[in-house]
Amino acid sequence: MTEEQIHQKYMRAAIAEAHQAQLLGEVPIGAVIVHDGKIIACGHNMREKFQDVTYHAEMLAIMEACAAMGSWRLEECDLYVTLEPCIMCSGAIVNARIKNVYYGAKDPKAGAVDSLYHLLNDQRLNHQVHVESGILGTQCSQMLKDFFRAIRKRKKLARKKRRARG
Amino acid sequence: MTEEQIHQKYMRAAIAEAHQAQLLGEVPIGAVIVHDGKIIACGHNMREKFQDVTYHAEMLAIMEACAAMGSWRLEECDLYVTLEPCIMCSGAIVNARIKNVYYGAKDPKAGAVDSLYHLLNDQRLNHQVHVESGILGTQCSQMLKDFFRAIRKRKKLARKKRRARG
Repeated sequence: MTEEQIHQKYMRAAIAEAHQAQLLGEVPIGAVIVHDGKIIACGHNMREKFQDVTYHAEMLAIMEACAAMGSWRLEECDLYVTLEPCIMCSGAIVNARIKNVYYGAKDPKAGAVDSLYHLLNDQRLNHQVHVESGILGTQCSQMLKDFFRAIRKRKKLARKKRRARG
Repeated sequence: MTEEQIHQKYMRAAIAEAHQAQLLGEVPIGAVIVHDGKIIACGHNMREKFQDVTYHAEMLAIMEACAAMGSWRLEECDLYVTLEPCIMCSGAIVNARIKNVYYGAKDPKAGAVDSLYHLLNDQRLNHQVHVESGILGTQCSQMLKDFFRAIRKRKKLARKKRRARG
């Protein structure tokens, strides 16, 4: 397998996680963590289900990876995530000293890796992360677009029904 | 009670949490979350004990507050924490839409509220937080200084012993 094929393989696993989130009615974002060629942790957004603000895909994957490695240091680990991490998740990635981050779609409103900040490459911090973006990017962003389009459609329909009733 | 006395009361509760961390051999950082005049959640740093990178005082308090409120939105909640929050915790604070943050000591190396970044007051994000710093600041920073001084002393002693042995 080429390096690109390997990245796509792990991103497909992250996309499968995102689908799990979607089945729960959550914004479809998924992540996996890879160590030594193996997926050691995975996570999908479950903020609404558990009403916990920290339950982002990356955070859940990082917590699981810490348990799997028996260490809060994930120095030889790579994170694959379908959407550009937010500030909280970027902070956790730096704190955990994750080596490489590969993400799919950019998040212009809240992304803290390339969009609003470059938190994974701040030389003032004690760790910097190698970042590659756009891995299966179209697929990752299409999934989100479809999700939000469906929500808008449902809301429009509900408004129409209310108007028809009243 | 004056407003200052109220802030000091809650910061003393955060300091008590920090002492709990210290008893576990953890860096002494503590936090409490207040809603409607009551402490609804608390947390102290337990990163080493659980080998989980997300177990910062603020994160544990935020998770507990979400459970207490039954919501990931902590809009009417205030956070008191002995040390300036890092990037991860600042991200969680913004995501949770916490109203006010009161912290004790500045963290020039990793603080993301005033020192390295001003993440709680970024107009591009969908929430900004009112921040006050220096609440019982001397006490909060002295506790950390004492902790690190004791660690350095233990390390120096260990080196001396090794040299004497060999």
